[in-house]
Amino acid sequence: MILKCRKCHEPAVVNMRQHKLPLCAAHFLEWIPEQTQRTIEKYRLFTRTDRVLVAVSGGKDSLSLWDILKQLGYQADGMTLQLGIDEGLQYSDQSHHFIEKFIGDFWPGSILHTVDVKSAYGESIPEVARRTDRGNARPCSVCGLIKRHEMNRLAHELGYDVLVTGHNLDDEASVLWSNVLNWQIDSLVRQAPILPADRPGLARKAKPLCRCYERDMAAYAVLRGIAYIYDECPFALHATSLQHKAALNDLENKHAGAKLQFYLGFLNARERGLFTLPEEDAPALRTCERCGQPTGTTAGLCTFCRLWDKKQAVVK
Amino acid sequence: MILKCRKCHEPAVVNMRQHKLPLCAAHFLEWIPEQTQRTIEKYRLFTRTDRVLVAVSGGKDSLSLWDILKQLGYQADGMTLQLGIDEGLQYSDQSHHFIEKFIGDFWPGSILHTVDVKSAYGESIPEVARRTDRGNARPCSVCGLIKRHEMNRLAHELGYDVLVTGHNLDDEASVLWSNVLNWQIDSLVRQAPILPADRPGLARKAKPLCRCYERDMAAYAVLRGIAYIYDECPFALHATSLQHKAALNDLENKHAGAKLQFYLGFLNARERGLFTLPEEDAPALRTCERCGQPTGTTAGLCTFCRLWDKKQAVVK
Repeated sequence: MILKCRKCHEPAVVNMRQHKLPLCAAHFLEWIPEQTQRTIEKYRLFTRTDRVLVAVSGGKDSLSLWDILKQLGYQADGMTLQLGIDEGLQYSDQSHHFIEKFIGDFWPGSILHTVDVKSAYGESIPEVARRTDRGNARPCSVCGLIKRHEMNRLAHELGYDVLVTGHNLDDEASVLWSNVLNWQIDSLVRQAPILPADRPGLARKAKPLCRCYERDMAAYAVLRGIAYIYDECPFALHATSLQHKAALNDLENKHAGAKLQFYLGFLNARERGLFTLPEEDAPALRTCERCGQPTGTTAGLCTFCRLWDKKQAVVK
Repeated sequence: MILKCRKCHEPAVVNMRQHKLPLCAAHFLEWIPEQTQRTIEKYRLFTRTDRVLVAVSGGKDSLSLWDILKQLGYQADGMTLQLGIDEGLQYSDQSHHFIEKFIGDFWPGSILHTVDVKSAYGESIPEVARRTDRGNARPCSVCGLIKRHEMNRLAHELGYDVLVTGHNLDDEASVLWSNVLNWQIDSLVRQAPILPADRPGLARKAKPLCRCYERDMAAYAVLRGIAYIYDECPFALHATSLQHKAALNDLENKHAGAKLQFYLGFLNARERGLFTLPEEDAPALRTCERCGQPTGTTAGLCTFCRLWDKKQAVVK
């Protein structure tokens, strides 16, 4: 049986079973931006008068997001980090190539801010991970720490109103899954499509693709003609998040929409006040004396600044 | 490698990987009651001056629980429902046989209250399920409704301080899993080792085995020599709860203790106040005008009493 597009009755190329919605390419390429706009409005992420900074990695989600926000008329600039990950794949160089190509192909003249971690701090991600020996020989935890710090720093220093990332539904659902399995209370309390800039030094953060399935974002990039880096980061191959995604896909295969229901049910529960901690339980944060960002450490530098403070890092 | 009992260095017959604790039969048969006593104290379920009513089904958990409470010196009487489930297996008759045998073998003279659903209300579980056509031709939802109502009625009418059930960790974790996957907020808020008698007509309810793995309860029954009904209820064979248990066992196989951590993490989050709804969100309950139990229906009879009110049930 050939599925027909719900809107024009041409043959469908994408069937979003979670919405019981088959669409042709043209209508699918309209639908994803419309859905993104609905998410932006529903969760009040930002408006067209806000200056938006999109964190791009060269992957399908972040490039598609930047594309969609431009189409929707938002003032969206890009930022990226040169992480210095090679592993025989020239991973970081490739990533950068796809970002440049995207700008040239789709939105020439767009502003892209680049931070080269090695130029800025003296070591690439694998180098700092090796020296400080954090995270069981895998640089993922150091990488996440540096990315979060630098994205926040740039958004804040350059005066953007909001930093947006390309996290899709599968990303959010797998983090939620992990947070629930381990009952990571503080993470559960903060997991949302928007994080307000509620501390000095903190930028507002938003995830406009949080209701879009990963496979639909891949279809969007392909149908739109966006070339993107296809490989996962070589360090992330056995990441637990990928196992969680597989478990959720098993559920989804048994019951179309399970993944979406899981995530939206959580957001509804949040709205009903289920994840509100008593005031006194909010983690106490200070301001790092070097970089000025909020930190949970009890004295001195934040975890990011300690990374580069070789004496402390070597002592461990 | 032969594992040795942690306490006496004899060969172990049970290895509780979640506690890294191999034990011989004698020490395991001591450990399960000790663990039960710790649960009773930690969650303040009841004391030795309370009159305790144990709901028994003839299965390993409820018979073992009754046995353990007797050993621990609690004033524990039993209650059971004759459900009238046959399905070619004489399921209910067999269940009752194992209960009688347990009493004769272990605790002769114990008080057992029996409610025969057909004698009391005119129809067995399969009969009322067929007539009212509830729950997609499976009587499980009607059965649960009737069991909850009758257990509560007996505990309340006979003046027991607390009704206890044999729910083990796997039961609780799989209900939690389901409550989380579907974000059943009201169920999450009420899922706990103890439910207080906080409404007129409601008995206190407690689950002293909530920290014991299902496989360990099976080992307890076998090593203690308790004969129990081995089959699942014929109607429960494809129950979602069994699928959830299988998913949790997959996790447990990858990481010993995952199931326990999932449940205990939830209880800790509860204690930190994570699942407290705003006052105005508590479901409004009335008292049923016929049976006097609390009900969420907006007028007239409760769902249980409506079951037997043929005119209403047929109208649907």
